[in-house]
Order: sequence, then structure tokens, then C-alpha cells
Amino acid sequence: MSEKNKKSGADDSLDVIPQLSLDCVIFGFHDSTLKVLLLKWKGLEEYSLPGGFVKQDESVDDAAVRVLKERTGLDKIFLRQFHTFGKVKRYDNLALQKKLSHMLDEEVFQERVVSIGYYALVDYEKVFPNPDKFTDKCEWYDLIDVPELLFDHNDILNKGLKALRLELSFQPIGLNLLPEKFTMPDMQRMYEAILDKKIDPRNFQKKILKTGIVIRLKEVKKGVAHKSPYLYKFDQKRYKEVLEDGGLFFI
Amino acid sequence: MSEKNKKSGADDSLDVIPQLSLDCVIFGFHDSTLKVLLLKWKGLEEYSLPGGFVKQDESVDDAAVRVLKERTGLDKIFLRQFHTFGKVKRYDNLALQKKLSHMLDEEVFQERVVSIGYYALVDYEKVFPNPDKFTDKCEWYDLIDVPELLFDHNDILNKGLKALRLELSFQPIGLNLLPEKFTMPDMQRMYEAILDKKIDPRNFQKKILKTGIVIRLKEVKKGVAHKSPYLYKFDQKRYKEVLEDGGLFFI
Repeated sequence: MSEKNKKSGADDSLDVIPQLSLDCVIFGFHDSTLKVLLLKWKGLEEYSLPGGFVKQDESVDDAAVRVLKERTGLDKIFLRQFHTFGKVKRYDNLALQKKLSHMLDEEVFQERVVSIGYYALVDYEKVFPNPDKFTDKCEWYDLIDVPELLFDHNDILNKGLKALRLELSFQPIGLNLLPEKFTMPDMQRMYEAILDKKIDPRNFQKKILKTGIVIRLKEVKKGVAHKSPYLYKFDQKRYKEVLEDGGLFFI
Repeated sequence: MSEKNKKSGADDSLDVIPQLSLDCVIFGFHDSTLKVLLLKWKGLEEYSLPGGFVKQDESVDDAAVRVLKERTGLDKIFLRQFHTFGKVKRYDNLALQKKLSHMLDEEVFQERVVSIGYYALVDYEKVFPNPDKFTDKCEWYDLIDVPELLFDHNDILNKGLKALRLELSFQPIGLNLLPEKFTMPDMQRMYEAILDKKIDPRNFQKKILKTGIVIRLKEVKKGVAHKSPYLYKFDQKRYKEVLEDGGLFFI
């Protein structure tokens, strides 16, 4: 490993795989809205996804777990690798250099980097966002308000969202985005936020109940207008069975 | 780029990205059977998937297209990146060294390599398999007869097959695996081979016809026993619409 490669990590002392990085699209769900965690770069109005390099002695999955833990305080996060971004020119290096040359080594703008994209689903209420050494804010953004991002991170975010939509029917998305107890309208709004379309509530409730993946609790949600809706939790065993046995392709 | 990195490509003169490779699971369909293209290593009873390195001036997708063209003679192949394999120890280096040290540079056994997995679907009848410089045979194997492969290539193959199964309902798999004209039993057998399960023929035909993705031709298939079955071709525009509009999740 050359000196150069040693320097290209977030920490100068790290021995990392050269020309390889990872980026994380971290999704949360709150107030009926799908949100994503973004970093704001120090002293600039520039934003990016959280990311990092892969140490020589860690797997790429472990590197993603480490980055997620550093940014959210959480481990045991639901994490899926969705695509590796490997164009020769992933972004406009000259434009990037103008913006960031005071913060990053020159080699960052010369060397091509291939990046592995992960998406993560986290319980919004349990996350303590934490910026890295290049950034001074780590904050949730509504998906609809995401600004122009550095590097090719808008592409990575869009592809991560596409992967989430595709996997909605055969991964335990609800289990990871919803709080432990939720109402049927909460769950419906999560589907609506991810798919960006309206769903008929009566059909939705009927179909979900028919699968047996949720258990109705004796509690109702308090502090909501009109009739208090019942709370549900997932029957995790049944949820897993349904996903493995062909999925929830009816929404 | 160091001398070392220059040497790690399949061709010594290539300037490739260090510690990054790609491997291809090339599927074909013939005689009602799903097949995969394997390389046999020179003078050994050892097999692997086709693969290669990524040149500094080509995208990872273009590298996969190049490898596929070298091995099959085809360009314009349906190709999907499905997973990047990034464990620290992807395989037993010592065991590999015993088998291949007379053919490969020492560094191959020392340096960890992250590999990007692609699967490809090809028209079996149009492929001219062609070994690379380390191998003396490039041949189709029935999926069920695949031997133990070098590196972690059995894992890569299995994950590629899983990706193919998942994408069967929203990628134009039939268009790429079946010949231009095919019978309804051909199509059914393709689904059965990929999913490794029996499908009820009457239901299958009814559901496929209802989608409008196939057009019945005036020809029938000749030289088959019993009643000659009609030939069909895909209505490519309609096929694309159905896949985009929620997919074929009924098989």
C-alpha cells in the first residue's frame, strides 16, 4: 500500500482500499414524510450523503455499518447494498475542486473513485445525527426538499429510492421505518411516501389484515382528532414468512 | 498508479483499478434448461466464472461489456449489476495458491480484491464461447451440474441466480433468454427453470395472454410430437409497459 493510498481515507492513519468508497442513503419516516439524512459541509452551503472509505481489514458491509454508526449513533441498522457507481467521470471534478479544494487533498480531484451505494432504514426517533470532520451539520431533509448535492450524490439518492421502492414488497421495510406501535393510517402513509402515490385506505387495510403480518393491540392512539385509531405491531415471524413466500406485491 | 497496480490486470500492460475486479454470471436457456457459462483453467480440473479487471479509463459497466464480448463474441447483451462482493477473506487464499501459483502473480494471493457481480442473459444459439489466457475451455453447464468453482464463484453464481429470480417479474428476462420465436411451453419452461418449480400450464398461458405481452404468429412449431404448438413473439412495447407498470408478479 503506497503513502498515497494511506492518505485517502477520512482518517489519515487509515490503511484503506484505494479508489473505492461507499455512500449511504439513510431513510427515516416522520410526520407522514420520507426523510433522508444529509451532511452540510463546513462553512459552505454544500451538502452530501454520508460516506467513507473501506479499511483494508474490514468488509465493505462492515465499513457501511461503521459509517452509519458514526453518523446516527445506531448499530443493528437495516442496511442494503443496492448499486456500485463506477463511471469514469462520476461528477465534474473541476467544479468540485473549486468548491472543496481548501478542505480536501489534491488527489481527491485527480483519482477516480468507484463508490458502493447502501441504503439504510432507521427509526427516526432513535437517531442522533452527528456530522463528520468535513461537515458541521448532519440533518434530516424531507425527500422533496433535498438540495443539489456534491459529487453524484443526487444520482445515488435517486437510485437508492428506486431500490427501496422495488424492495418494498419483499424486504421488511415497515418493520424498520415504523415505530414499534403504529396505526393503519401510519403504515399506509409510509407506503404512500415511498411510492409517491395515493392508496385507497379501505383496500389497503383489508389486504394488510388478510396477510396476517400485523397484530392489533388493545391500545388506541391518543391525542388524534376524531375517532382514536387502533395501534398495531408486526407479527415478525408471519411478516418474514409472507415476504419469503412471494412478497407483498399487492400495494 | 504504482507498478504493482499496473501488473494486476489480465494484460500486464493495462492500467487497472487496484483491488477491484468484476465477475459475470452468463445465463443461457436451451433444451428446457437454464445454463451458465464456465471457464476451465489450463491443465487443471478447476473452473471459474468469466471475469476481469477495470481499466482506469473505462466504466465498470463497460469493463463488464468488454469481458462479455471477449467470452461470448456478443455485444448488446442484457447485463445487470447485482451485487458487490467485499468480504475481507472472500476465499481460502492458501488453497487457491496451491492450485494456481504456477499461473498467477504472487500478489494475487496477497492482495484482497473486491468484485462487482454482473449477470447476463444471452441467446444460447448465438454465443461462441471463447476461453481467456488462463483457461483452455469456455463451456455451457446445466445449472444443476455446476462443479465447485475457484475463488467464491459459487457464492457469486448463487447470488446472481437469486437476483435473476427477483427481477424475473420486472425485467425483460424472456426477451433476452428466449429465441425470437417461441412456443408457450418454451416460455413456461423458462420460468420453471429459473424458479425451479412447476407451473400449471393452463393458468400460465391464460395469464400471459391476458397481459398482451406476446403476439401469436401464424406459424406453428414443426418437428414436435403431438399437436404442433403455435409460435409467439414478444410485443416489445407492451412488454415494456407491463414491466414498468408494476411488473408480472403473478407467476
